[in-house]
Amino acid sequence: MAGSVLGEVFRISTWGESHGKGLGVVVDGCPAGIPLCEEDIQTYLDRRKPGETKYSTPRKEGDEVTILSGVFEGYTTGTPISMMVLNTSQKSGDYSNIAEVYRPGHADYTFDAKYGFRDYRGGGRSSGRETIGRVAAGAIAMKILQELGITIRAYTKQIGPYVCREEALSLENIEKSPLRMPDLKLSAQAEDYLAEKMKDHDSVGGMIECVISGMPAGIGEPVFGKLDAALAGSIFSIGAVKGVEIGAGFAVAEKCGSENNDGFYMDAEGKVKKHTNFAGGILGGMSDGDDIVIRAAFKPTPSIFQPQDTVNRHGEDVEIQIKGRHDPVIMPRAVVVVESMAAVTIVDRLFVGMTSRIDKIRDFYR
Amino acid sequence: MAGSVLGEVFRISTWGESHGKGLGVVVDGCPAGIPLCEEDIQTYLDRRKPGETKYSTPRKEGDEVTILSGVFEGYTTGTPISMMVLNTSQKSGDYSNIAEVYRPGHADYTFDAKYGFRDYRGGGRSSGRETIGRVAAGAIAMKILQELGITIRAYTKQIGPYVCREEALSLENIEKSPLRMPDLKLSAQAEDYLAEKMKDHDSVGGMIECVISGMPAGIGEPVFGKLDAALAGSIFSIGAVKGVEIGAGFAVAEKCGSENNDGFYMDAEGKVKKHTNFAGGILGGMSDGDDIVIRAAFKPTPSIFQPQDTVNRHGEDVEIQIKGRHDPVIMPRAVVVVESMAAVTIVDRLFVGMTSRIDKIRDFYR
Amino acid sequence: MAGSVLGEVFRISTWGESHGKGLGVVVDGCPAGIPLCEEDIQTYLDRRKPGETKYSTPRKEGDEVTILSGVFEGYTTGTPISMMVLNTSQKSGDYSNIAEVYRPGHADYTFDAKYGFRDYRGGGRSSGRETIGRVAAGAIAMKILQELGITIRAYTKQIGPYVCREEALSLENIEKSPLRMPDLKLSAQAEDYLAEKMKDHDSVGGMIECVISGMPAGIGEPVFGKLDAALAGSIFSIGAVKGVEIGAGFAVAEKCGSENNDGFYMDAEGKVKKHTNFAGGILGGMSDGDDIVIRAAFKPTPSIFQPQDTVNRHGEDVEIQIKGRHDPVIMPRAVVVVESMAAVTIVDRLFVGMTSRIDKIRDFYR
Amino acid sequence: MAGSVLGEVFRISTWGESHGKGLGVVVDGCPAGIPLCEEDIQTYLDRRKPGETKYSTPRKEGDEVTILSGVFEGYTTGTPISMMVLNTSQKSGDYSNIAEVYRPGHADYTFDAKYGFRDYRGGGRSSGRETIGRVAAGAIAMKILQELGITIRAYTKQIGPYVCREEALSLENIEKSPLRMPDLKLSAQAEDYLAEKMKDHDSVGGMIECVISGMPAGIGEPVFGKLDAALAGSIFSIGAVKGVEIGAGFAVAEKCGSENNDGFYMDAEGKVKKHTNFAGGILGGMSDGDDIVIRAAFKPTPSIFQPQDTVNRHGEDVEIQIKGRHDPVIMPRAVVVVESMAAVTIVDRLFVGMTSRIDKIRDFYR
Repeated sequence: MAGSVLGEVFRISTWGESHGKGLGVVVDGCPAGIPLCEEDIQTYLDRRKPGETKYSTPRKEGDEVTILSGVFEGYTTGTPISMMVLNTSQKSGDYSNIAEVYRPGHADYTFDAKYGFRDYRGGGRSSGRETIGRVAAGAIAMKILQELGITIRAYTKQIGPYVCREEALSLENIEKSPLRMPDLKLSAQAEDYLAEKMKDHDSVGGMIECVISGMPAGIGEPVFGKLDAALAGSIFSIGAVKGVEIGAGFAVAEKCGSENNDGFYMDAEGKVKKHTNFAGGILGGMSDGDDIVIRAAFKPTPSIFQPQDTVNRHGEDVEIQIKGRHDPVIMPRAVVVVESMAAVTIVDRLFVGMTSRIDKIRDFYR
Repeated sequence: MAGSVLGEVFRISTWGESHGKGLGVVVDGCPAGIPLCEEDIQTYLDRRKPGETKYSTPRKEGDEVTILSGVFEGYTTGTPISMMVLNTSQKSGDYSNIAEVYRPGHADYTFDAKYGFRDYRGGGRSSGRETIGRVAAGAIAMKILQELGITIRAYTKQIGPYVCREEALSLENIEKSPLRMPDLKLSAQAEDYLAEKMKDHDSVGGMIECVISGMPAGIGEPVFGKLDAALAGSIFSIGAVKGVEIGAGFAVAEKCGSENNDGFYMDAEGKVKKHTNFAGGILGGMSDGDDIVIRAAFKPTPSIFQPQDTVNRHGEDVEIQIKGRHDPVIMPRAVVVVESMAAVTIVDRLFVGMTSRIDKIRDFYR
Repeated sequence: MAGSVLGEVFRISTWGESHGKGLGVVVDGCPAGIPLCEEDIQTYLDRRKPGETKYSTPRKEGDEVTILSGVFEGYTTGTPISMMVLNTSQKSGDYSNIAEVYRPGHADYTFDAKYGFRDYRGGGRSSGRETIGRVAAGAIAMKILQELGITIRAYTKQIGPYVCREEALSLENIEKSPLRMPDLKLSAQAEDYLAEKMKDHDSVGGMIECVISGMPAGIGEPVFGKLDAALAGSIFSIGAVKGVEIGAGFAVAEKCGSENNDGFYMDAEGKVKKHTNFAGGILGGMSDGDDIVIRAAFKPTPSIFQPQDTVNRHGEDVEIQIKGRHDPVIMPRAVVVVESMAAVTIVDRLFVGMTSRIDKIRDFYR
Repeated sequence: MAGSVLGEVFRISTWGESHGKGLGVVVDGCPAGIPLCEEDIQTYLDRRKPGETKYSTPRKEGDEVTILSGVFEGYTTGTPISMMVLNTSQKSGDYSNIAEVYRPGHADYTFDAKYGFRDYRGGGRSSGRETIGRVAAGAIAMKILQELGITIRAYTKQIGPYVCREEALSLENIEKSPLRMPDLKLSAQAEDYLAEKMKDHDSVGGMIECVISGMPAGIGEPVFGKLDAALAGSIFSIGAVKGVEIGAGFAVAEKCGSENNDGFYMDAEGKVKKHTNFAGGILGGMSDGDDIVIRAAFKPTPSIFQPQDTVNRHGEDVEIQIKGRHDPVIMPRAVVVVESMAAVTIVDRLFVGMTSRIDKIRDFYR
């Protein structure tokens, strides 16, 4: 696969550059009969839109989505859904100084190494704006999950040294924090920390946690198509992600089996439950019915406004001083991107999972 | 994809259960002209074979591989390579007590939830023996990488609280440690720790690090086909992996951009280099020519010999006492599995990457 | 695959309905460095545009293409190329009478059977306008093939009883015939035949032949990925195609081996040639260097202006009288669609074929 | 895809050469819960086995299949099913004369062109024995279809000039004819014709027809994933096939719309039916509930025992005289291969089609 198509049965194909005519996605494999309008998509796109707080690039983009196909009289028809957002605020002049120079921490050098040249305006295809197609597709995946009683919520778990503790988290507070950090006291502290770093023309890293609730047990495939592997792969495909973990995650390295195994029990309703959830809702690559808890580490925005050592296209050592419009922190706007990648992946795995038992297939086609 | 096929152009299809007739893999997309014999595969399989040290299950398996197709007069022909290892030491009796009961931390429950029933003997398809097909395919991928000057080495980086420091690592020591931990002093301490846990009928977790050297720059695709995303997905598909990180990994969450950006410079040979490698050899999803450094966290073996709370197929709370043959630690034998998944993934991405520039394609077909 | 994505490495994803906002395609996997502008695409789209002759629907559509991404400073960048044509001449009113009724020979009934409802305006996704995305993608594939010295030409071989004989064919005459039938004398006769059928409110079937020249030998994969199988599959995916044959095609059924085998010989330039080309340029699924000759049978347009028996959504027998704008013959406009599907398929197979030999891969990455 | 993997959800991966250790297939994506034993597979393999009549190679092969994985206590488990047939009657000596020479009508030259060398023994991977994996996978697909009330029957429709007329066909006679030609009178005539050609050391071509009954309406995807396109592609991937047509097939080229449209009506049970079936059971790429009727033209066996012009590896013109064991006619043994490819394709499309409507998905996961 050349890289911009994802999914086996629910398949998305994204396109677009930061400073091209626009960005978008084609979703192939969305079932018929889902009520869908542009507002459904816009709600999600607005959560990643720039210019909303002081922690995002002041670039003003309406990011208004148009649904071009696949919806008729308010319902999906089962045919491909093409969605587009036109770029309206491209300032190519802003970026002319980086046409020849490789920004540290960016993909400028690797794009040139791969393709021989690149669309250098605003990072081109490696811009954060590339995620518009992901979020638009994610919005549709969310509509499908909603029909099946599955919900996905992500939030900023960590910014620099500030890490939300489980007990202080209240999911309803996510949107109350400009950092989408649902421990509001910690969020305020993180804002101070961020302000300080911005004064130093620096940027900060962090972590996003994503919780998927309402999953049926048995979703995911046992070997390469493991649900956690699919989620890890799709979330790792978000720019700036440097690590993904599930459940107890990297902490398992220090644990013993007797500490890490989640004992099973039967709950009052006759459902199989676990005393703990160190597994993060997935055992052997398949959902166990518990919440799926997954975390992704985001590196600090590589665009910092300090002089940096680098090289140019001509193989010369140079110093670069980045200008322009850049978020000092990625997580607040990436929250919805993580949700989107999770949603798209879960839908694909749910669909693939419909063929695992002949008795259910027989019922389906009866 | 139903789950046991991996790769777009270099495609592997694994099969087999712990206590079935055997296990194996079909590799479709291996180029013609590579010298290949069973010994090439056996070398890798021997590194994952059980029964070699006191830290692995005493199950004795020769794990002798047969190449069934795709090789003629000592060279690959470009047609599918089918490889098989017969099971010789199945003791189905060992497992009869778990036919009805869900072992905590295992996939027993989720298999039943997905398929309605399962091959309960030795974990069936979720057994560690499933990795035989991966390693056999990995051995072929390694042969391809060797032709291109790319090497892959993995080792145990951490066992419980014992974490190898970079400066004490000597890759040549990997095979000298029964734990494949190349800081031999630390390895000895970890052995003591492990012995203690085994006495408690417990198991331990840890971490494996994998280093890929000699990569050309520009391998990987910019969006969903990112090289790190592909590696994360394939390594996360190994049973027991709960987290994957690259370069600075989760540590980026606490860093500033000014600390985390790797400045570029030109080296004496006119190559683009980085002062540091926090990126772990991948920028924007494409290799930057530096070492790719990736780590995976492994949970402690879920098979512990202590009584545990669980439920059975009939929805009753029961206590389980696992017997049988199980490794108290997964990492030493998983090292070669991590290498294999990395190798298979890199080859696939190298192959896909051959079509990124028209000038090179023109030269190819001239 | 949900159906609107095609290709393994050169991957196209089409979208759009006859009476929606527009139609288009995303091409993922186009190499960087190809000069490309909208004019390159428009040339091909104009060849399928309606309203040019009396044998096509009088619907007037400019069918002007916009390239939305993937091209920078006149060259492809290697990132996805999104192309769009807006619908400008939708007259939904024309189609209101068929909302409830299944037109014979059309996909109305099967769409409803599959999806529960359909966009009934102008056939929705099953309209001939769906091919706009194919042709736009085909135009890019043609640019790639041009770089490699490969040409593709298709033409109307047959209309009703009028079949072009090889010896009277002159490819330069294709565009001189309103039917794209390069035996101009026969073309005139076929026009008379067609005029007569139009007077009867009827439509006619026919056949298109496609010739691919300049192929290197050895393209295609030996088993399921046979070049002829891939071409057959992609050409069969064009609406109205009811048969595909290659080389001698169905005539082989009556032949003996001694008549059908193409003997090999060495030509003056030291190239392997065949005395005849009954194979149609493909042996064992791989190109033999000779012209690839493939033919597709097209059924008569199902939209005829005579009363027909049918049923409606409510399960009642009814009579239908189709109105509106419909071509009485499909071939003239389908010629470029056949070329496009051939081009897209050949490029994909050429790209996949780059990994068949380790010596060439080694050279590539040196 | 490198060529030996087929299917999106029900995925088969075949392997093996004529004179290697054996041949086989891995089926990934078979649902759990299907009763399956080796006898189920053997029945189908026996229908393609050589040595049964005077019209097949006298090579004696038991072609006994072993199921290596994916079945437990008599039922499929949902994990990959690996099946193998060992070669027992390889006589490599028979083929030594063709190691250097390209047989006309065979893939010898194209294999060398693609891979640089080839396993020349008995055609290697391009041997008819390659179909063993297809038939073994087809047998499993047939078991799945049986659970859904779908049947597939193929037979020899034509041998040389002898073409079965519909009215003389009796499907129950298929296995009574050594040519699998269910018009027994015609079969006897064709036998005489064949005997004559064998006396001349020649071979004959023909046609196979395949009928798929019991299909639900609405299976197949509207654009590239059309059911007829998928069937055409998979049947065209059988060696020796030079054409595929559906329903009226190539005859549509001479028809008018008023002749070719199948009018709909409601039958007594309230089902949508068609007065005729020129469509061959597929409209717009989706099944219409009627029988699917598909035909494939097979070229005469290229191995004839007459001297033929050809060239050798060293670029010299030479004369070849083929010896060895070869069928003078392909159809009788290919009948089960056509059925198998049809079955595998239908299952894959049935599985993909389970996600086309949200209401049904909701019911499924309730």
